[in-house]
Amino acid sequence: MNVLTVEKYQNLDKQSFNELIEKDIPFVIRDADFGYCMTQWSADYLKDRLGETKVTVHQSMQSMLNFIDKNFLYKTLPFNEMIDKCLNDDQHYYYLRSIGSDRRARDVADIRAQFTEISDDVTIPSFMSICQKTDECRSTQDCHQTGHRQLFSSVFRISSKDLVLWTHYDILDNILVQIKGRKRVVLFPPDNCQYLYLESDKSRVIDIDEPEDLLREKFPLFLNVDRYECVLEEGESLFIPSLWFHNTTALEFSIGMNFFWKDKQLIDDNMYNKSDVYGNKDLNPAVDAFANVDKLVKHLDKMPKKFTDFYLRVIINKLQNKLN
Amino acid sequence: MNVLTVEKYQNLDKQSFNELIEKDIPFVIRDADFGYCMTQWSADYLKDRLGETKVTVHQSMQSMLNFIDKNFLYKTLPFNEMIDKCLNDDQHYYYLRSIGSDRRARDVADIRAQFTEISDDVTIPSFMSICQKTDECRSTQDCHQTGHRQLFSSVFRISSKDLVLWTHYDILDNILVQIKGRKRVVLFPPDNCQYLYLESDKSRVIDIDEPEDLLREKFPLFLNVDRYECVLEEGESLFIPSLWFHNTTALEFSIGMNFFWKDKQLIDDNMYNKSDVYGNKDLNPAVDAFANVDKLVKHLDKMPKKFTDFYLRVIINKLQNKLN
Repeated sequence: MNVLTVEKYQNLDKQSFNELIEKDIPFVIRDADFGYCMTQWSADYLKDRLGETKVTVHQSMQSMLNFIDKNFLYKTLPFNEMIDKCLNDDQHYYYLRSIGSDRRARDVADIRAQFTEISDDVTIPSFMSICQKTDECRSTQDCHQTGHRQLFSSVFRISSKDLVLWTHYDILDNILVQIKGRKRVVLFPPDNCQYLYLESDKSRVIDIDEPEDLLREKFPLFLNVDRYECVLEEGESLFIPSLWFHNTTALEFSIGMNFFWKDKQLIDDNMYNKSDVYGNKDLNPAVDAFANVDKLVKHLDKMPKKFTDFYLRVIINKLQNKLN
Repeated sequence: MNVLTVEKYQNLDKQSFNELIEKDIPFVIRDADFGYCMTQWSADYLKDRLGETKVTVHQSMQSMLNFIDKNFLYKTLPFNEMIDKCLNDDQHYYYLRSIGSDRRARDVADIRAQFTEISDDVTIPSFMSICQKTDECRSTQDCHQTGHRQLFSSVFRISSKDLVLWTHYDILDNILVQIKGRKRVVLFPPDNCQYLYLESDKSRVIDIDEPEDLLREKFPLFLNVDRYECVLEEGESLFIPSLWFHNTTALEFSIGMNFFWKDKQLIDDNMYNKSDVYGNKDLNPAVDAFANVDKLVKHLDKMPKKFTDFYLRVIINKLQNKLN
């Protein structure tokens, strides 16, 4: 296992930010100013402002959410109650990942639209060139002309101390802003996917901190990963590039948010899945490619094992050559 | 490189032969009796019997046939002249691989039908249970009932001293009978395909005996192969299982023949390509699978390289998991 540190920067301007984004490697900004929220948000402040607003959260008896064992359930409760439970419930762990108001209507999370009482608290720093949907950019076309990144969603993230969210990738670039509490984030680059025992967009390696001898037994390939680590202090923001796997651990009760944006080229080429509300549905051509994988496997399975295995090897080799 | 010896056997009966075939590993039979040809065939005998019969051969200035550089051409000439050239032409190397009388009619090689003057010289030993298309088996159905292997083709193979035929695989099991001259055969198992730099059914590693440092430079993966070697002495026969790669070198002027047979299950399941006259066209489901590979690659190529490579890795990993 190769452990790497995520670099931290401050005083970025538009150009230096763009250059870092271009590198497609995670980095932390110590001092990005997202407005009033940075200094004012606290458990009490949010309880006061959002009060009885209903939210749906993950609730679990275990700190480490596990999508295989499904050791959590979804609870809908008032915002102030959720905050109290995050802080005081000794039996459970909570995780809020805000969603759109109407999932069936393909409504994505928009922190300022869904939590209007606090919408004025949040402003994306202008050096990030993320479209704020003001008069300046009314359409994709406008964003293209202004050179803005097109905001896809803004997500509220609140969690109990010690809560661990499983390792997964998103297909959108995003900035995770840590407002209250500290959070450890571990990231793995996209070309580590073969070491992560994937199930769709998630890794079956639930506990990435298990002792090496246990990992060697259960997930031997995982020991080959490049493990990028950082601890986000209050007020720090992390750039998580699309397709980079990430795993978060709230070292303290945490209040944060993140902003996903879409890639200009991929919008133009119509590659995003229109029904994606989370930013994690694979690009349309990838879905088509996966369908062809299923078909080819069906064809191969018609043959006796000797031939199936041989042609599988030949095909893997063809694809490997394409990669090199 | 792991060098292994091909085992040699004698005095096989039907049961021991079947058991060896089941192992799906090449082996040599020292004493299989294919009739009068074993003792009587020689350059002079065949010249005398087949005289002016026209045959088409590979002719090359180089001993090592190269399908990439196409360092050979096809010549049609009388059988007796071909034999003389094999023995006496200092400028050229010749290789006869007999074919059916009418390729357009999907006519496969049948040594006894195409060279009637010598057809009585050849009898497949009965312990091999290869159908001779006598009264006993008039149809596939009959073969199934008698438990016979169904003969696909019988091929005359005559070559100049030193001629090397490129490494390739066939999709049919076959027995190569060495009648005159000695021949070195090197074989590689099907699961070595990723080390052989394949182009369809052939390896781009033309000279498998090149010094290791040159190979390391040009074909580094080739150094991982399991190299099964044998020298076929006059009168010896080699079982070459389907999908096993093989490369032959005539250590002396060589007269031989081989018999391909079809697999019962694959016949029943209609998996052979009906237009295959050489026994080297991939099985129908493999061709369908390859078409899906082409399609999936086209889908992946629509995306920016970062996504193409990521999803390629994910797909390779899926297929790799299926193999394990």
